[in-house]
Amino acid sequence: KPTFDPKEHQHLRYNPLRDSWVLVSAHRMKRPWKGQVEKPSEDNIPRHDPNNPLCPGSVRANGEVNPEYDSTFMFENDFPALQPDAPDPGSDHHPLFQSKAARGICKVMCFHPWSDITLPLMQPAEIRKVIDKWADLIVELGAAYTWVQIFENKGAMMGCSNPHPHCQVWASNFLPNEPTLAERCQRDFLQKHGEPMLVQYARMEAQAQVRVVVENEHWLVVVPYWATWPFQTLLLPRRHVLRLPELTAQERDSLASIMKRLLTKYDNLFEVSFSYSMGWHGAPTGSYLKEDMSHWQLHAHYYPPLLRSATIRKFMVGYEMLANEQRDLTPEQAAEQLRKLGEEHYKVKKT
Amino acid sequence: KPTFDPKEHQHLRYNPLRDSWVLVSAHRMKRPWKGQVEKPSEDNIPRHDPNNPLCPGSVRANGEVNPEYDSTFMFENDFPALQPDAPDPGSDHHPLFQSKAARGICKVMCFHPWSDITLPLMQPAEIRKVIDKWADLIVELGAAYTWVQIFENKGAMMGCSNPHPHCQVWASNFLPNEPTLAERCQRDFLQKHGEPMLVQYARMEAQAQVRVVVENEHWLVVVPYWATWPFQTLLLPRRHVLRLPELTAQERDSLASIMKRLLTKYDNLFEVSFSYSMGWHGAPTGSYLKEDMSHWQLHAHYYPPLLRSATIRKFMVGYEMLANEQRDLTPEQAAEQLRKLGEEHYKVKKT
Ligand SMILES: O=P(O)(O)O[C@H]1O[C@H](CO)[C@@H](O)[C@H](O)[C@H]1O
Ligand SMILES: O=P(O)(O)O[C@H]1O[C@H](CO)[C@@H](O)[C@H](O)[C@H]1O
Repeated sequence: KPTFDPKEHQHLRYNPLRDSWVLVSAHRMKRPWKGQVEKPSEDNIPRHDPNNPLCPGSVRANGEVNPEYDSTFMFENDFPALQPDAPDPGSDHHPLFQSKAARGICKVMCFHPWSDITLPLMQPAEIRKVIDKWADLIVELGAAYTWVQIFENKGAMMGCSNPHPHCQVWASNFLPNEPTLAERCQRDFLQKHGEPMLVQYARMEAQAQVRVVVENEHWLVVVPYWATWPFQTLLLPRRHVLRLPELTAQERDSLASIMKRLLTKYDNLFEVSFSYSMGWHGAPTGSYLKEDMSHWQLHAHYYPPLLRSATIRKFMVGYEMLANEQRDLTPEQAAEQLRKLGEEHYKVKKT
Repeated sequence: KPTFDPKEHQHLRYNPLRDSWVLVSAHRMKRPWKGQVEKPSEDNIPRHDPNNPLCPGSVRANGEVNPEYDSTFMFENDFPALQPDAPDPGSDHHPLFQSKAARGICKVMCFHPWSDITLPLMQPAEIRKVIDKWADLIVELGAAYTWVQIFENKGAMMGCSNPHPHCQVWASNFLPNEPTLAERCQRDFLQKHGEPMLVQYARMEAQAQVRVVVENEHWLVVVPYWATWPFQTLLLPRRHVLRLPELTAQERDSLASIMKRLLTKYDNLFEVSFSYSMGWHGAPTGSYLKEDMSHWQLHAHYYPPLLRSATIRKFMVGYEMLANEQRDLTPEQAAEQLRKLGEEHYKVKKT
């Protein structure tokens, strides 16, 4: 019988942050693809489009005029999924028909006044401003709300409906499903093992190096052992940090630098502006601010769908939706591919 | 303060099969869409294409020649994610780097010899043959494997790479994540409430009618109270049935009929061949065959992504991946839209 080789032999890996498993079937990369091909993202976006509601000086859906902003710019989402004042559906429900109140607020934050730029092409000082705003948002919205989800959908493939560089913030009075899982798993881990899960994990990955993509004095980016999306990464501080606002000035500069390096590698992988959804998970806020949340470690998830080229993505469909998530290359293979890529952006090189 | 109206006021609904919540923000349907539009599925697929490996008489990737089949046809997936003989990764793992053996088998089943037909356009007797094969597969593969996942990815949007009507079957020696959840939730419910969850649920939905899409003597299709995808449905027997092979001849005919009616409505909704991923969940098999599994009720899930038209889909991206699934119309609205659609297929009507 052959000895186990993760590149050749399918196996399951455990995700300790979600208490679930991922099926790794790396031998499957060999299969040909005749299905849907993605439209590569547009390359001729105008720097300024007066009809784009995210541009400086534009009129938005609610009639407001954007200022002539020259850095970041924040406004309330004109079509929010969460509003601050929804009435309560009551609490007297049959176990099969349970509902509960959801209150919150949705904001949009533009990263830059130009529509034809993305984070990896921005200056570190400009990225730093985005990071400072993220931290401010956690302070501001976290005072009242239990969970402040900062996320970026990048690329049409990830449901992004506007090419202007921006992220969103949806804050809620409830702990959503994903952070509820992360809360429980991290709490149990600290209790059982005496150290916050992701603090231990970062240390071990920094030692092993096999899944590291980029690192610096304060941060580490790995393709996690349990990654589900082909080039999924996890961005972790080396120090134990509960929430974004705790980051020092130095750690923020260092974060701007490592984000630029990671995102440049992502773009260089298939020489295309790389689509992804990303977001920050830190300790819950609101009433949790007063509790001991030391089992938490701040981290960001990057979930990019592309698999084999600028036009071939991984679909999480039938088997994945009904049974189990499945991936077609090992996390170690993905990390190696990303690691060996240059850190000069292909667009800069070409000009 | 206004009284609660689920169509106007966002709220959370509980999914008792997955022990998680979905955010319902129906007021959000009003937002304009400027993002990615889907290519409507092709309408001129040739009935027979000798280069399509799923057609009768074609040569497949492994060199085998398909028979000139005239009904269903089954073969082993040429690029299987699960193979029967993968070696074991061992069991001595650090808690953050856990893996385990995954063994299984992947099959493909063609529904019909023609490439230009889909289930809703097939005759009930032809659909019945598909159902019989599904039941046989559970008997055959379920003897050795713990979980036999029958699923269909329909449409390029759902990662389907071949237009020929077919489904897949992936059987495994482990209980995947989704059935593990369904197992736990149904077990707890029976213990707590004295009746299998989905038996009680079907009875209550049949009474309430507000989420029913189609029904007959043996079957019920509802947009579940906790649906996440816009037009997601749940197909349930009225009788308590653990697994597909238990269905009587009458119940199978009746299933063929209700599937045809449901899928015709799906196609009629936006007058397009409706994309979805669907699959069957019944009580686990293998060593579970000897256990009391009466907390289970057989059911099928349909997960279709289209939201507002043949070209506008729902994206489950940033907020959904990182925080919480979210939907843009109420399940009751979706059920009503589907219910009032005709049961004659738009393609038949036009000819
Ligand atoms: O096996 P297929 O149809 O080529 O592949 C499709 O279904 C599989 C099972 O859901 C997925 O893993 C693939 O990503 C998808 O493209
Ligand atoms: O708010 P946007 O960017 O228009 O919308 C996008 O992100 C949202 C949050 O992940 C999703 O609910 C939408 O389906 C998606 O299209």
